[in-house]
Amino acid sequence: MKLLQQTILEKGTVLPNGVLKVNTFLNHQIDTGLMIEIGKEFAERFTDSNINKVITIESSGIAPSFFAAHTLDVPLIFARKKKSLTLKDNVYTSQVFSFTKQETSEITVAKEFLAENDRVLIIDDFLANGQAAQGLIDVVKQAGASVAGIGIVIEKTFQPGRQILEDKGYRVESLARVQSLQDGQITFLQEQISVTN
Amino acid sequence: MKLLQQTILEKGTVLPNGVLKVNTFLNHQIDTGLMIEIGKEFAERFTDSNINKVITIESSGIAPSFFAAHTLDVPLIFARKKKSLTLKDNVYTSQVFSFTKQETSEITVAKEFLAENDRVLIIDDFLANGQAAQGLIDVVKQAGASVAGIGIVIEKTFQPGRQILEDKGYRVESLARVQSLQDGQITFLQEQISVTN
Repeated sequence: MKLLQQTILEKGTVLPNGVLKVNTFLNHQIDTGLMIEIGKEFAERFTDSNINKVITIESSGIAPSFFAAHTLDVPLIFARKKKSLTLKDNVYTSQVFSFTKQETSEITVAKEFLAENDRVLIIDDFLANGQAAQGLIDVVKQAGASVAGIGIVIEKTFQPGRQILEDKGYRVESLARVQSLQDGQITFLQEQISVTN
Repeated sequence: MKLLQQTILEKGTVLPNGVLKVNTFLNHQIDTGLMIEIGKEFAERFTDSNINKVITIESSGIAPSFFAAHTLDVPLIFARKKKSLTLKDNVYTSQVFSFTKQETSEITVAKEFLAENDRVLIIDDFLANGQAAQGLIDVVKQAGASVAGIGIVIEKTFQPGRQILEDKGYRVESLARVQSLQDGQITFLQEQISVTN
């Protein structure tokens, strides 16, 4: 997605520890116009997948998934990272390890929001090692529902997340695929385009 | 806001501890269509307030503030509840006590996202004791910026939040004003409407 790649190049920064910082438009300050385009792009890519629910993880997943759910005309659910007082026993939970934060958090989804016949689109802001996506897959499967696909805003192709998910048979759609952050330079994967002619 | 009141009556539930549970449309599963109407309503109410930024708190504030920022054509910032690895020293922080969760959390906003001349609209999902709003006011003031107003999705008028904020001179706009949750019944404040004629 060109607009996203341009924004990452213009506004993203690479921290010394290799973290791609996108907090001016994605996960602290939000560019709502860009998020709407991102949401529409996800909806278009999965338009034929009979999706009836979109699921993400708080907080950074909410903005990019908002318009995907809206365009597909289905509810958006965000998994919570901690049990709340108003979420008691009737929840599915899974463990998600964050390499960035070096901590494990428990994600929680109320059972009432997932049903056996659901076809769920998982959306998240980053795909690196695939931990968050696998936590969401786990939750969807506990409900007996199926994962119709996984939409990612920014994929780090030099980390194993996509391979792990594809090996399990899931379709992964990433809107920006970062091949390298070496020496503070952001390089995108040059995707093969097959031209018929 | 009629659509919001209707949705609260239809889908909200009152827990035995007096908590109004709205997780089927606002803070766990999200009704994006309703959130868009909520955002537009905030934008309309503050359209003449020269707002150049909207600020909220993760996670439940993001969906209802998304379209407010988008309609006003200004950036949306969400305060984080914990310091992250990519947010180091250049942050404003404040303490927010949650009566529902009975815990204090630190909210954090990167300094780069607030400037002295900013006129900021604060949006949050609930107003009860005013703790979250005051934390956000504190952060805005640390930046030397001004608070142009406070937009609330659901206000509990039987708790002191509004009075505290109005006593400090802030304009508060709530889209649904709940007067009572006694006996599990949701009652809205009957607002005085002055009719000329």
